[in-house]
Amino acid sequence: MQTVNLERLLKPRSVAVVGASSDIARIGGRLYHNLIRHGYRGDIYLVNPKRREIGGVACYASVSAIPHMVDVILVAVPADAVASVLEEAGKNNIKHAVVYSSGFSEVGGEGGVKQERLAALAEEFEIAVCGPNCVGIINFQDRIAMSFSQFLQTPRLVPGQIAFISQSGALGGSLLNRAQDKKIGFSYFISTGNEAVLESSDFMGYFIDDPDTKVIMALIEGIKNAEQFLKVSDVALERNKPIIVMKVGKTEAGGKAASSHTGSMTGSDEVYDAVFKQKGIVRVDDFDELYLTASAFVKTQLPKGNRVGILTSTGGGGVILTDKLVEAGMVVPDPSQETTQNLREVVPSFVSVQNPFDLTAQLINDPLLFRRCIEVFAKDDNFDAVIVATSMVAKELSEKRASFTIEGAQLVDKPVFAWWAAGSLSAPGMEMLEGSPVPFFTSAAHCVNALQAVVQYAQFDKTLGDTEMQAVSISPANRRRINKILGSSRNDLTEDQGKEILSCYGIPVTRERLGKDLQEVKEIARDIGYPVALKIVSPEITHKTEAGALRLDIENAEQLSVAYEEIMRNVNQYNPEAQIRGVLVQEMVQPGREVIVGVSQDPQFGPMIMFGLGGVFVETLRDFSLRRAPLREKDAWEMIRETRGYRVLEGVRGDKPSDMAALVQALRTISQLAVDLKDDVSEIDVNPLVLYVEGQGAKIVDCLFIKK
Amino acid sequence: MQTVNLERLLKPRSVAVVGASSDIARIGGRLYHNLIRHGYRGDIYLVNPKRREIGGVACYASVSAIPHMVDVILVAVPADAVASVLEEAGKNNIKHAVVYSSGFSEVGGEGGVKQERLAALAEEFEIAVCGPNCVGIINFQDRIAMSFSQFLQTPRLVPGQIAFISQSGALGGSLLNRAQDKKIGFSYFISTGNEAVLESSDFMGYFIDDPDTKVIMALIEGIKNAEQFLKVSDVALERNKPIIVMKVGKTEAGGKAASSHTGSMTGSDEVYDAVFKQKGIVRVDDFDELYLTASAFVKTQLPKGNRVGILTSTGGGGVILTDKLVEAGMVVPDPSQETTQNLREVVPSFVSVQNPFDLTAQLINDPLLFRRCIEVFAKDDNFDAVIVATSMVAKELSEKRASFTIEGAQLVDKPVFAWWAAGSLSAPGMEMLEGSPVPFFTSAAHCVNALQAVVQYAQFDKTLGDTEMQAVSISPANRRRINKILGSSRNDLTEDQGKEILSCYGIPVTRERLGKDLQEVKEIARDIGYPVALKIVSPEITHKTEAGALRLDIENAEQLSVAYEEIMRNVNQYNPEAQIRGVLVQEMVQPGREVIVGVSQDPQFGPMIMFGLGGVFVETLRDFSLRRAPLREKDAWEMIRETRGYRVLEGVRGDKPSDMAALVQALRTISQLAVDLKDDVSEIDVNPLVLYVEGQGAKIVDCLFIKK
Repeated sequence: MQTVNLERLLKPRSVAVVGASSDIARIGGRLYHNLIRHGYRGDIYLVNPKRREIGGVACYASVSAIPHMVDVILVAVPADAVASVLEEAGKNNIKHAVVYSSGFSEVGGEGGVKQERLAALAEEFEIAVCGPNCVGIINFQDRIAMSFSQFLQTPRLVPGQIAFISQSGALGGSLLNRAQDKKIGFSYFISTGNEAVLESSDFMGYFIDDPDTKVIMALIEGIKNAEQFLKVSDVALERNKPIIVMKVGKTEAGGKAASSHTGSMTGSDEVYDAVFKQKGIVRVDDFDELYLTASAFVKTQLPKGNRVGILTSTGGGGVILTDKLVEAGMVVPDPSQETTQNLREVVPSFVSVQNPFDLTAQLINDPLLFRRCIEVFAKDDNFDAVIVATSMVAKELSEKRASFTIEGAQLVDKPVFAWWAAGSLSAPGMEMLEGSPVPFFTSAAHCVNALQAVVQYAQFDKTLGDTEMQAVSISPANRRRINKILGSSRNDLTEDQGKEILSCYGIPVTRERLGKDLQEVKEIARDIGYPVALKIVSPEITHKTEAGALRLDIENAEQLSVAYEEIMRNVNQYNPEAQIRGVLVQEMVQPGREVIVGVSQDPQFGPMIMFGLGGVFVETLRDFSLRRAPLREKDAWEMIRETRGYRVLEGVRGDKPSDMAALVQALRTISQLAVDLKDDVSEIDVNPLVLYVEGQGAKIVDCLFIKK
Repeated sequence: MQTVNLERLLKPRSVAVVGASSDIARIGGRLYHNLIRHGYRGDIYLVNPKRREIGGVACYASVSAIPHMVDVILVAVPADAVASVLEEAGKNNIKHAVVYSSGFSEVGGEGGVKQERLAALAEEFEIAVCGPNCVGIINFQDRIAMSFSQFLQTPRLVPGQIAFISQSGALGGSLLNRAQDKKIGFSYFISTGNEAVLESSDFMGYFIDDPDTKVIMALIEGIKNAEQFLKVSDVALERNKPIIVMKVGKTEAGGKAASSHTGSMTGSDEVYDAVFKQKGIVRVDDFDELYLTASAFVKTQLPKGNRVGILTSTGGGGVILTDKLVEAGMVVPDPSQETTQNLREVVPSFVSVQNPFDLTAQLINDPLLFRRCIEVFAKDDNFDAVIVATSMVAKELSEKRASFTIEGAQLVDKPVFAWWAAGSLSAPGMEMLEGSPVPFFTSAAHCVNALQAVVQYAQFDKTLGDTEMQAVSISPANRRRINKILGSSRNDLTEDQGKEILSCYGIPVTRERLGKDLQEVKEIARDIGYPVALKIVSPEITHKTEAGALRLDIENAEQLSVAYEEIMRNVNQYNPEAQIRGVLVQEMVQPGREVIVGVSQDPQFGPMIMFGLGGVFVETLRDFSLRRAPLREKDAWEMIRETRGYRVLEGVRGDKPSDMAALVQALRTISQLAVDLKDDVSEIDVNPLVLYVEGQGAKIVDCLFIKK
């Protein structure tokens, strides 16, 4: 799924180093050195008007002076000189560039102007530019090191099937160093820098089609083109290419001003988190977990479920794994009776056959017995995956142990992960596992988290057919009503206007009508039937309780008159200037479970839906979930189940369960509305939506629409 | 604070290996080898009746045959032979033993009997026994390796100030290997095995007085002698010796049957967690974090607060640290105006002075400038601690960077931690930091978690004077009333009995009295004043709502008669056999915030207090806190603030705050009651305690006492 053709950028037949230098401490010197050192087999041209040659290689005075075809220019000149280099390249029909130079938008001020100029030139001449302010690109498969990262001082590049995109050049190089220490290979490394032209999702799009890449991994602070990222995510799911992301920058200084719940609760990191969940993106929160999890995905097949068997040579290690697995929502079931019986026949009588299965010294030191134990235990249908835990085994013995584990894993048709608790004394064995097809970890936490990621990815429902909701059909008349409401009001919509829109979408709202005077109000109340509620309708009065502009449980006409007069008096005191559209007469609804549904428009990802329970849940406990609209049925279910308060809806202490089907329908319909009206409405609070017991539906009691 | 004198066990002048062997694969062979290899300078005697010599050293036929004083016997004979060895040792006045042999309680059945025999002999002859089923003891300071752990294949022991107690021998050795790889030194390692005689807290008690030990670290599944552990914890706090614990075994298979909330919610791991919090024990959940945190405590001074400054050579790294610090409840404030101004004078204009402070390439490569930046930034009074973050710097440059960091840290009088993101290419610099006085981490998560542990320990209020609550004075008359209530009833106490006990302790309960018949009930209602509630009182009926044995809001005598008859009819239907003690007439209390206070008796730690809010909080959200009774004032405050629902008590959306002083008083008084009645009462549920607004107190509306 290529958004730009990057083939030649990533696999250039020839490159030109612009700003070449003989000084290896300078970027222009380091680039040439690294290309040679790691065995680039294409042509390299050096450009430096001040030098005739560098290390015996001729220097060209300019890009135009190169008498050959150049696939990629590697630009290491000062920021001020970058534009003229790009222009010259463009005129010479060079279509790809990596710009390493800093001094662009990252320094603010003038830098931003320079970056805009760079982007404009790239567009004019159709040059695919990586950078500026990046450490460059490494193609591990073909050993093309177009980067000045200090990582390239590594003795050799370990190729593999992970494509790594990093917005941070320094952290990217550090991570590569660590991962390659553990024999974890890569197909490509891309430092995207300021992403003036090419951005992370362009590269993701390329890697989805790249047969050398099995897993895409990214270290990012944000996504520039949300729409493209979403498309790429969908295709990645289709092609079964997992995307593992560490997104940093969770805590934003200062909240944004927002007039609804949803607005105030949905910071940018929460939106990313919601989108990642919805798109099957695997999110990790730890630097080491990023490459370890990616490597696990490269090595493992996907498990059928979340039930894990543990084979351990340390009782304590088995307990540690069990703790972490259960905390991560996985299951550590007993082995089947058959397995227990089969193992009983091979192991000494004092060995207790259970899960975790603690292999005693005797079993461990008998290769045949050990292998038999792994085989019988791991094959048990009660387990979807197996972890083999090892503690201190020194030197040669560690190699023996590692080979048993690797051989054992090959005997079973399910994921087998390995955790080894020891240090340098077990290095020989641990190194064997690092280079083996078994996902291997020195940290129990990383092992369990990676397995959990794999389990969740395997369980993620990849059916995309359901993505677009069966469009709610709005009749032309209703469409006109909605447009009229949105067009007429100058401020935020009044409650009745919001409800009218919601009911055009077929969502049940309270029976109600607007009365202009006491006479009309009385007639409406009679039609609706007592008891009723009275509420002022005025664009200037959004907080009705505070203004004393709300009366509930009015039983008869007499009480109605009193309430009406009181409200009018209060409103006049509260804001004599308020423009009164009338008084809303509303049925008093039967009590039920109150939930809140919100809509906000994220500047990047567009309409987002928030869901939570009323009462203390959303406001005090901040217990809510978030998804991008429109919602598939499974999205709606997931966001409901994600809240801690969900159990209340299922019915606690003998309460009947709430009408979940009605809730799912309401969430999906509001999400459709959020998409349809995204250009007109910035926020919606539906609060409360009253949910009745199963089969009895739901009803919107109050709502607030804020126009754009 | 020695519970047993362990000086000679840990620093023996002479040892005897019983079960000595020439085969290094056997424990008896490995022990001798390890003692020699690591340079034991005391006398070693070998005991093996079948051999005359091993490797040129004479063998004695038995312990009695050794013609010299033996401080410790190292017992590596089969389980069946251990008792006779101990007996012989006892008769020869040998006072210390390490028993490595397995086949005791860990295998169940006969093994348990053998272990009892071992413990009995130890008591009879006053032998301090470590084990059985352990890998032994290592004294790093004096290089005495009384262990067969494979860890001892390490080239040399790195001494240090951490004493490490491990119930798991295998994990213990693994951890030592890893920690020593990182130059983290130890004073002692103790594998306590089955703890038949000496247990973890005996060794902790010794290390508290040990001048070579600065930090005590333990890897445990549980504590055998809770009372002793609690005492040791108190003394450790007094002496400022941090105890760092990784307690595994969080998830218990199957819940226990319990008839109250408190009982069902307080599993053993939760009790440990509560006790750790109360006693200032630092709990970690990760194997690597255990020794890294301990090492940080050895190296660092304690910070004055939780405000952290970040100096970073990678922008992304600064963001990662900020995310993790904020998530851990720490603060990343701006530098002071003075600091900003001072730094502005030294750094180039495009460098943005803020926190995290991102050192650019220019700053990093100028040693004087870099040092000046560290100094000015780190000395800022806005920061209580500083983290220096480094990413990829290769080879020699990494050493330069490390030395800047180490020198910089010495210039400031506050904790400076270092995180380095790279791998083997930065090894020279990272190794310098490992061996330096700067707490050093390769994982940002470990760095932040260790700093958090240090901050929390520093903030822990160590004043013990408040431990014993001002004893609630119970008059002799009230004491008799309580004893009578506890003595008379055969089953669980009825509501009125429970409340009578609570009111003897001065806790306000609802005004109420027990009536025998309708006539009496009417008189009581008149005295108390309408509205009232009626409740059946019967030891057989604990769930009154279910039985229809409860009526609220009775407004007058007429309603009272109806309600009385109804209750009687319902109870008769529900359980015709129920013994009716009468009908409780109770004032209807004003509504307030409902909270729940529970008491349960933990088999190890004794009376525990549970606190949570009513409604959905405790039951649906499992939002409660737990502490051991009696509660100090700070314990009560901490357990209140620990709940998520706490904000509700502070007053949300303009509600007035609840009477916290009354709540603290009620919690402390109930905790005192829990201690006083621990032999009679197994569980108490006070549900609800109604809490009024500040100054208006609290009142107990219902309660359930379950007798032992």
